[in-house]
Amino acid sequence: MKNVGPILRLAEMADINSIVDVQVCEVGLRDGLQNVTEYFPCDQKIAWIQAEAAAGVRSIEVTSLVPAKLVPQFVDAQQVVEAALRIPGLEVLALVPNLKGAQRGVDLGVHTLNFVMSVSRTHNLKNVRREREESVEEFSRIAGLLKTLPQDRRPRLLGGLSTALGCSYEGQIEIVDVCRYAVALAEAGADELMIADTVGYAGPRQVREVFKAVAAEVGSLPLAAHFHDTRGLGLANVTAALECGVRRFDASLAGLGGCQFAPGATGNIVFDDLCFLLDSMGYRTGVNLDQLLEVRDIVSRNLPNAAFYGGLARAGLPRHYRCVDERLI
Amino acid sequence: MKNVGPILRLAEMADINSIVDVQVCEVGLRDGLQNVTEYFPCDQKIAWIQAEAAAGVRSIEVTSLVPAKLVPQFVDAQQVVEAALRIPGLEVLALVPNLKGAQRGVDLGVHTLNFVMSVSRTHNLKNVRREREESVEEFSRIAGLLKTLPQDRRPRLLGGLSTALGCSYEGQIEIVDVCRYAVALAEAGADELMIADTVGYAGPRQVREVFKAVAAEVGSLPLAAHFHDTRGLGLANVTAALECGVRRFDASLAGLGGCQFAPGATGNIVFDDLCFLLDSMGYRTGVNLDQLLEVRDIVSRNLPNAAFYGGLARAGLPRHYRCVDERLI
Repeated sequence: MKNVGPILRLAEMADINSIVDVQVCEVGLRDGLQNVTEYFPCDQKIAWIQAEAAAGVRSIEVTSLVPAKLVPQFVDAQQVVEAALRIPGLEVLALVPNLKGAQRGVDLGVHTLNFVMSVSRTHNLKNVRREREESVEEFSRIAGLLKTLPQDRRPRLLGGLSTALGCSYEGQIEIVDVCRYAVALAEAGADELMIADTVGYAGPRQVREVFKAVAAEVGSLPLAAHFHDTRGLGLANVTAALECGVRRFDASLAGLGGCQFAPGATGNIVFDDLCFLLDSMGYRTGVNLDQLLEVRDIVSRNLPNAAFYGGLARAGLPRHYRCVDERLI
Repeated sequence: MKNVGPILRLAEMADINSIVDVQVCEVGLRDGLQNVTEYFPCDQKIAWIQAEAAAGVRSIEVTSLVPAKLVPQFVDAQQVVEAALRIPGLEVLALVPNLKGAQRGVDLGVHTLNFVMSVSRTHNLKNVRREREESVEEFSRIAGLLKTLPQDRRPRLLGGLSTALGCSYEGQIEIVDVCRYAVALAEAGADELMIADTVGYAGPRQVREVFKAVAAEVGSLPLAAHFHDTRGLGLANVTAALECGVRRFDASLAGLGGCQFAPGATGNIVFDDLCFLLDSMGYRTGVNLDQLLEVRDIVSRNLPNAAFYGGLARAGLPRHYRCVDERLI
């Protein structure tokens, strides 16, 4: 596979960070679509990405670099990534399940590779058929691959820890286990860790405990958060993570999402409501809320039977609402 | 109207406070039903109250003491209050729009009278057809009435400030106005203030600002919070209010609710999810979550066309979830 399109260099990504206070990464195209059996047309995926970028979204997980025979939804990964990379200023992320996926991501020029393992042994075995230690080893191999690349072609490497706040199979997850695998991924070369409540088990107090414990173990390594709104506590958990210094959040437009290997899991937190929450709290995300809501149409017309969530979409912005940039003037 | 049934005395209500860390008051029978045009049968309202009390709910706003010709839904206020008062340990609240309603509440033996005015002048005029100063005067008259009663027959008086965090007509509400009317109700004799985000405009930062400002003005008078989940931020706002020391929250089962004089307003925060949030954070509410979820059936079978919300109802409790009392053992 050839290296495609203009690449957003790491230096440019630093620019992105400087114009927003909180990074919001839309993961609907990956986490939202991964369990949708009907194929979402490639040109509509690209329209979704372009419309979101036009609304000011600066970070999108556009696909999963898994074998197409395993997840046919992502058969168009190359075209989607290529189209996304043509959008100036957009950080393009892709999930990579293993070294092979990471190599593909490097070849495609993806800016950020998102490798995910589960803290829950049972979930990791079900989801990727590996022991957790094998996942850490695979992550090390990916980090090793990236170290061989010149700096300006080296993607960022996210170390994701799913089921870090609870597991549909195992129930409670011990914080000591979260810390153990956080340290393992940090030492193996993660540029950032993503702590995920895959099945929406956590409340704000647990979020504070887990994020503080992990932060204490991994020092200055940035922590990001990935919450599901399964039991309605997703945005409350965001505020708890904000208090712990987290400044990067995943969410999916209209709350699409779930996990086929996590019974009872429903969607991610609603991206549109997340952006409203952050804006209302005075954090700049770069996102234009009105424009963002219009992007939902692209998703709903292609997924007429999916469940769509979101308070902002239902009620609209408050009357005379002034977004954070207007309030700062 | 005669004074009915055994009354829970103020001393007994102090007992309630001592066995819970956070008081949760279910307002679906009032705020949820006030805009429902189809009559919810009296015996089903009583079944709802009894089932909730059996699930450990200790505080229920059971009706609104408005003239039945204005809101036919509450034509059965007397029967509902009488039935609720027979339940041992349950704090029975009723909304009172004016002195006449308050007198009726006293005659019925209601434990807590909830008088509500709007901080937004426009909303107050639309909702109760009074200037805000006239509302304060009416509140003073109610407080005066209560002072004439012997201690053991004197209900608690809640001073409610609706649209305190935004108004569908006026947009933003100045904190100085919230404080002005908070002080006015406090000085007139409120036992507690209820700060309400009637139309779901607020985010957690604003909640902190408003509650801290009001608390600074009214000293040790307890503050309660009433949030709507119109834009998805309701439970995030609860955590912000908790941080400000608020220990009493309104919510309605399944998120029923709204306000006909507040365009765009949707339901209250979901009582079931609120109880789960608090329990997950280690606050005792006295509520058994599994039993509470079963009460939704009573509501849904009587309101087949209403919108029902709630993550906990959709997903159930986390696997091996241990409620706060079990965790404390």
